Amino acid sequence: MEVSSWEESVTASINTIYLLFSAYLVFVMQLGFAMLCAGSVRAKNAMNIMLTNVVDAVVGSISYYLFGFAFAFGEGSNSNPFIGTSFFALFSIPNDTYDYSFFLYQWAFAIAVAGITSGSIAERTQFTAYLIFSFFLTGFVYPIVAHWVWSSSGWLSASSSALLFGSGAIDFAGSGVVHLVGGIAGLWGSFIEGPRVGRFDAFGRPVQMRGHNATLVVLGTFLLWFGWFGFNPGSFDKILVAYPNTTDQGNWTGVGRTAVTTTLAGSTAGIITLFGRRLLIGHWDALDVCNGVLGGFVAITSGCSVVEPWAAIVCGFFAAWVLIGLNILALKLKFDDPLEATQLHGGCGAWGLIFTGLFAKEEFVIQAYNSGESGVERPYGVLMGGGWGLLGAQVVEVLVIAAWVSLTMGPLFYALHKLRVLRIAIDEEVAGLDISSHGGYAYAHQEENQPRFYADYVRIQSDQS
Amino acid sequence: MEVSSWEESVTASINTIYLLFSAYLVFVMQLGFAMLCAGSVRAKNAMNIMLTNVVDAVVGSISYYLFGFAFAFGEGSNSNPFIGTSFFALFSIPNDTYDYSFFLYQWAFAIAVAGITSGSIAERTQFTAYLIFSFFLTGFVYPIVAHWVWSSSGWLSASSSALLFGSGAIDFAGSGVVHLVGGIAGLWGSFIEGPRVGRFDAFGRPVQMRGHNATLVVLGTFLLWFGWFGFNPGSFDKILVAYPNTTDQGNWTGVGRTAVTTTLAGSTAGIITLFGRRLLIGHWDALDVCNGVLGGFVAITSGCSVVEPWAAIVCGFFAAWVLIGLNILALKLKFDDPLEATQLHGGCGAWGLIFTGLFAKEEFVIQAYNSGESGVERPYGVLMGGGWGLLGAQVVEVLVIAAWVSLTMGPLFYALHKLRVLRIAIDEEVAGLDISSHGGYAYAHQEENQPRFYADYVRIQSDQS
Amino acid sequence: MEVSSWEESVTASINTIYLLFSAYLVFVMQLGFAMLCAGSVRAKNAMNIMLTNVVDAVVGSISYYLFGFAFAFGEGSNSNPFIGTSFFALFSIPNDTYDYSFFLYQWAFAIAVAGITSGSIAERTQFTAYLIFSFFLTGFVYPIVAHWVWSSSGWLSASSSALLFGSGAIDFAGSGVVHLVGGIAGLWGSFIEGPRVGRFDAFGRPVQMRGHNATLVVLGTFLLWFGWFGFNPGSFDKILVAYPNTTDQGNWTGVGRTAVTTTLAGSTAGIITLFGRRLLIGHWDALDVCNGVLGGFVAITSGCSVVEPWAAIVCGFFAAWVLIGLNILALKLKFDDPLEATQLHGGCGAWGLIFTGLFAKEEFVIQAYNSGESGVERPYGVLMGGGWGLLGAQVVEVLVIAAWVSLTMGPLFYALHKLRVLRIAIDEEVAGLDISSHGGYAYAHQEENQPRFYADYVRIQSDQS
Repeated sequence: MEVSSWEESVTASINTIYLLFSAYLVFVMQLGFAMLCAGSVRAKNAMNIMLTNVVDAVVGSISYYLFGFAFAFGEGSNSNPFIGTSFFALFSIPNDTYDYSFFLYQWAFAIAVAGITSGSIAERTQFTAYLIFSFFLTGFVYPIVAHWVWSSSGWLSASSSALLFGSGAIDFAGSGVVHLVGGIAGLWGSFIEGPRVGRFDAFGRPVQMRGHNATLVVLGTFLLWFGWFGFNPGSFDKILVAYPNTTDQGNWTGVGRTAVTTTLAGSTAGIITLFGRRLLIGHWDALDVCNGVLGGFVAITSGCSVVEPWAAIVCGFFAAWVLIGLNILALKLKFDDPLEATQLHGGCGAWGLIFTGLFAKEEFVIQAYNSGESGVERPYGVLMGGGWGLLGAQVVEVLVIAAWVSLTMGPLFYALHKLRVLRIAIDEEVAGLDISSHGGYAYAHQEENQPRFYADYVRIQSDQS
Repeated sequence: MEVSSWEESVTASINTIYLLFSAYLVFVMQLGFAMLCAGSVRAKNAMNIMLTNVVDAVVGSISYYLFGFAFAFGEGSNSNPFIGTSFFALFSIPNDTYDYSFFLYQWAFAIAVAGITSGSIAERTQFTAYLIFSFFLTGFVYPIVAHWVWSSSGWLSASSSALLFGSGAIDFAGSGVVHLVGGIAGLWGSFIEGPRVGRFDAFGRPVQMRGHNATLVVLGTFLLWFGWFGFNPGSFDKILVAYPNTTDQGNWTGVGRTAVTTTLAGSTAGIITLFGRRLLIGHWDALDVCNGVLGGFVAITSGCSVVEPWAAIVCGFFAAWVLIGLNILALKLKFDDPLEATQLHGGCGAWGLIFTGLFAKEEFVIQAYNSGESGVERPYGVLMGGGWGLLGAQVVEVLVIAAWVSLTMGPLFYALHKLRVLRIAIDEEVAGLDISSHGGYAYAHQEENQPRFYADYVRIQSDQS
Repeated sequence: MEVSSWEESVTASINTIYLLFSAYLVFVMQLGFAMLCAGSVRAKNAMNIMLTNVVDAVVGSISYYLFGFAFAFGEGSNSNPFIGTSFFALFSIPNDTYDYSFFLYQWAFAIAVAGITSGSIAERTQFTAYLIFSFFLTGFVYPIVAHWVWSSSGWLSASSSALLFGSGAIDFAGSGVVHLVGGIAGLWGSFIEGPRVGRFDAFGRPVQMRGHNATLVVLGTFLLWFGWFGFNPGSFDKILVAYPNTTDQGNWTGVGRTAVTTTLAGSTAGIITLFGRRLLIGHWDALDVCNGVLGGFVAITSGCSVVEPWAAIVCGFFAAWVLIGLNILALKLKFDDPLEATQLHGGCGAWGLIFTGLFAKEEFVIQAYNSGESGVERPYGVLMGGGWGLLGAQVVEVLVIAAWVSLTMGPLFYALHKLRVLRIAIDEEVAGLDISSHGGYAYAHQEENQPRFYADYVRIQSDQS
């Protein structure tokens, strides 16, 4: 056994375990979204929205295999900063840069994007339209943004050879690439479809439309939390990377810190939402807290690896207020996003990008993006004394994502709308999508008036005979 | 610290982490089955079927500890190709070959088998009969097959010193050993018990018996998907195994590819089922898609590590049609398997074994079964130019599993039937197993006609007083 | 690349992966508790109890970050055996002893404690009181006990330089530190609040109050089982630790064995409960089995790493009878703990500590607490010939935990009771906490009397018009 080859094998094994199990956790988020969405809609549409989440996964597998991954990470001689052009259908994978585990990890990210948007257009969208939109978003719109920010040849990347503003945008696990993309897509879908029937009364006042099952919402939230441990710390891709200028530190310390910042940001946002909503609406609302926690996660996702734990608390604090504020605004504007996906993933995602521009710490930026190399200088958070380069790049990322997604998904939703294939008919909406499009309701409680004990049952039977 | 011992420690640590966490994922499949089964039966039998899944796990722990593992993997001086004869009650474990983590991994497989069959005999089986059948299947019938195919001394094994047809059967993670075994057992159980009361009307036409909760079906499906990442890639057992003739490749590349083939096969089968069933029944059915995805997983489980990603798509494509076809056939034959376990695990499992005989790639077979050694020659997929040896062994595996399980489980179910301990009485079946055998229903919605807001409640109270 | 530094990096990476993913599993237990608790209470209180589980996590994040971790593991020049005094707000973390991953792992333990107690006081506690109690228990009472037993400077620790009775108490993953603490806190909360309205009739006879959803109970139980694989084996903290006097063994063997003992103890307790309750109450009760399994896990948690697999079966056997016996006693004493948390976590937790004093094996104790060093002698299980030192320390742990938690949580609950902020008003309790404190019920089934097929729906519509 040749030593250096053994070292390479150990390194590859450790990093593969880390990335694969992180990918599995990110995949759990798809289940989390399915449960969260199902619980947040009315019972008559539960089957529909769960099917959309399953479809995101299965259609996304094929489209991301065929071309999505190539658009996002395809590199090589004819690589360019705007779109990848190699690795279609995993051709020449594995190679020196990417193994199958990296593809799987990125696939799990890709399918999450459409899952976010599915919440915005819930309870009123034709299934055919969903198929078209999901395929287009997962296979094209999202991978392009991923290429810009995460590929080493991307023009916005923080690890390319030509850094925008000498910095590049730091969007470590995708507050922008994943959540803002999904949120903006949801904004256009929800805006073009308009509110659900009965969401606002004749006087324009909102009518509460409670989801049918809070247990599913809590289940989904906890599963998303679990999955976020793969989403954020996992985005280091490799755990066996030592930082040269420190003793006993490396990405293993970075991933641990990232898990901690993620936890603290989500928790803070949850607490603020708990008390903030208590003040505003007068009771302790479990569902608000769930959304608050998720808002905190969305916001920290951009800077999770480059900020101190205390800064994560600041991040979560403001994320809660961003979410609360945007929800109030949405009601005023009669904007109806059943899952608050626009406000949560869009609003908190944008805040997260800005937050990173304010609080990123020099040492951690160099660790995460230059493996802690000595002698490197690059912009970091404005409030940490790192100049305006990073914040500038972060603002650019917010703007170009908003523009790109608006210019692609807006026309798509509008065309579907004009072709009358976007929204279901009003009587189908009242009846529910499950009965009109999916063959039946999600729940069958035929035994509702049943006896409670077997003895009762026997007695009733004998009475009847 | 002596270097070679340190290397051994590192290797053991990495491989143990990999196998243990894979075992944990496989264990999640037991929860997945429990939720899938619960959602697919009527509410009055939900408690019963969940209890069977819990019982599979707890009874299986003890029986697999006492003798199941010994039957499957017991090796040594008196080892033979048909049944293992050592390691009862973990005696002389750990040893050079097996550590506790391997036992735990195999235990998680063993308990899954009875979980598959529990679906076939759902909603009409006496609990005592279930205990007997589960104990016999998990503790004896399944371990014997595992010994044949997976133990290095097994007569069908692909890694023994005397390979059947110079090849041995490639059933990497158990399309045959686990799923076909469970499916054939379910076939006999379901056939001998006969259809549920009311499943076919007086004219022999099928009457739909919808499960009571589609959310649980989706939850179970996603959990099974999550668990399958432990089931298939985990079956490498060790991740730190370098392939000598490649640069920077080893089992770490193999496990990643296996995760990808698994995902692609399940996704393809899901998509085909979505559109296929849309054509056949006229709506988009979420539950069909869930079953389709699972059928794709079952089929790829045999060849997951030895086929290219594109071949996995072929595998999933046909798995969907196998499932759709067998379901149509089952209805014609008035065969009632509430979970479609016979069709899904049996049919797609058999297809998966044949598929491997057609599409296994030489390079990957040598990697998975000979650690990529150079100079090795062995049969591989017929369509890949690898001759008929492998396909022959695969066909033999299908046939002997069908025969062995039929000869053991068939008589057992028949004896229980003749002793009148197999099926519950008709009035108990109508009332439901939960009320007749388990002390009450799974659900208690005593507050159904309750006021929606506390103010209403107070008003109603004061009205009444 | 300097070799020794590379070795350190490999070691740190492997151990971090192991500890972080174990922490993620332990976190899943919070979801498990949420589902178990939700399913075990009546539908009108489901939202309330799930919110308490979410709040345990988010409030616990902040309190454990600010001071809980410092109280538990704060060491240094002014360290003392009773309370830690450094590392507030993660100050000087990471250091040579602790990295962020250790904090995250311990955080996941801390939030579980309040989750246990929340079951005891379910369905009748004011949410404000819950916030106060949870903050105090997670942030102060629990960390102190953790310091005594788990910190190397703790007076009860099995790894300190001054071992109590030459042994210290072996509470590997916290039968005492976590479960007994949570159980005793629940005992006082439940005792001071008194039984739920209607739990006992005018003649003092118990009235059954079934939880509203058995599916959630099974879901929660399996999730807790999954999480326990992080809780018990994960408590080794490091997997890459070789035992010097053995060939090819180290913590990797220990963690595997710990996973096996955990599984066997839970399974045995589940089987005994299944048959025991069948004899006592005449039917096969799924919910009893779930609680039995959990009781077995709680009991083995103390000794999981230091006993043989066969001893784990003994542990589970008696754990089941402890639980069954205490439940009968509780009914006689008219003690109402909706989740049986006092009996299960308190009773089985105490049994687990005693069990370890009886069955701990010398070799395993030295492996777990002295990395298998040769020449070490220390007390072990009485029945294994290890003298009375260990059992003495175990008894002391039971007594001091009972005393400490009683002296802190008892007065707290009593003060809240006297201030009339502990229990909700009787009419709110009858209406349910969800409608009175949380803005609405967890479930909205407005479509209950809906048509089953779309054609019916259309016909009804046209009939009405």
